[in-house]
Amino acid sequence: MPDPIVFSGGTVGAWSVVGVTVVCGPSLAPVARVNKGAEPAVAASWILSGVTSNLRYTNSSEKRLLDATPSVLGRPAATRAALIPITKSAAWWALAQDQRRAVLEEQSRHIAIGSEYLAAVSRQLVHCRDQPGAVFDFLTWFEFAPADEGRFDELLGKLRASPEWEFVEREVDIRLEKVA
Amino acid sequence: MPDPIVFSGGTVGAWSVVGVTVVCGPSLAPVARVNKGAEPAVAASWILSGVTSNLRYTNSSEKRLLDATPSVLGRPAATRAALIPITKSAAWWALAQDQRRAVLEEQSRHIAIGSEYLAAVSRQLVHCRDQPGAVFDFLTWFEFAPADEGRFDELLGKLRASPEWEFVEREVDIRLEKVA
Repeated sequence: MPDPIVFSGGTVGAWSVVGVTVVCGPSLAPVARVNKGAEPAVAASWILSGVTSNLRYTNSSEKRLLDATPSVLGRPAATRAALIPITKSAAWWALAQDQRRAVLEEQSRHIAIGSEYLAAVSRQLVHCRDQPGAVFDFLTWFEFAPADEGRFDELLGKLRASPEWEFVEREVDIRLEKVA
Repeated sequence: MPDPIVFSGGTVGAWSVVGVTVVCGPSLAPVARVNKGAEPAVAASWILSGVTSNLRYTNSSEKRLLDATPSVLGRPAATRAALIPITKSAAWWALAQDQRRAVLEEQSRHIAIGSEYLAAVSRQLVHCRDQPGAVFDFLTWFEFAPADEGRFDELLGKLRASPEWEFVEREVDIRLEKVA
């Protein structure tokens, strides 16, 4: 079943903001903390909500590979995180399914590249394009150990240099540290 | 952009209920009228809401065929309609993208069969699985002239006999007549 996930930016939450990079499009209001839960936090400056959902592009052979290294959230060593909300262009969403798949994987190797980092980087994809009033299409969430932040940046660098990213028109990279 | 669509079952609305068939799973509370709009109607017995969204399975060659006969809602001759909410099983949603595509089209010819009826049957697919709390995955909507209801039933018969429908676990077929 789709699982609701709500990110609330404000003054409360288990994650302290350590940096914000606007990759493209407008930023979000600056906040000190981010709360991740099933419900919005009180008095939030911004609330981004969506749901986990079914796979949209992953083929069965790729799914077998991903399933072999399931993404575990909340690992004690993973005290760093990144919340990266993303919006893709109208041109992306107007493409047929095979055209989007071709850009995402055959041209950009999104799934293959991500697969190289499964052990170090736990991830969760939250869909929000189909929520009425949503301004982002996806809320991408990553957790990793401090020592793996360089590898995480390497992963992002590869994806952002890919043909798929020509369709990204808003992206805000919020880095977080777990509050002790 | 995703477009919110809300069906409200109750005593108001442009569509009068002429029949309800429960294909599988529980029915919906009986109502006299259905209102279709961007907002819920007041005092509704039930409210089913979702959004139009991007294509999930259609390939570019199929899209070209569909785009050549665009679905026009509100045709004056199309005084009959069907609202058919559908829920698919957890097994369907756990499949990889290529497996769902193979069942839907290569095994069931869903897009090809539907294409034979484009001129007679206008249609709109409303997605709701990713709406928090939704009980249906899709709200399928069809408009046709009274003389084409037999052809519409033929189309449904072909789809319901297909392997894809083994994954359908709730389906309610509500037939409607436009209020003069």
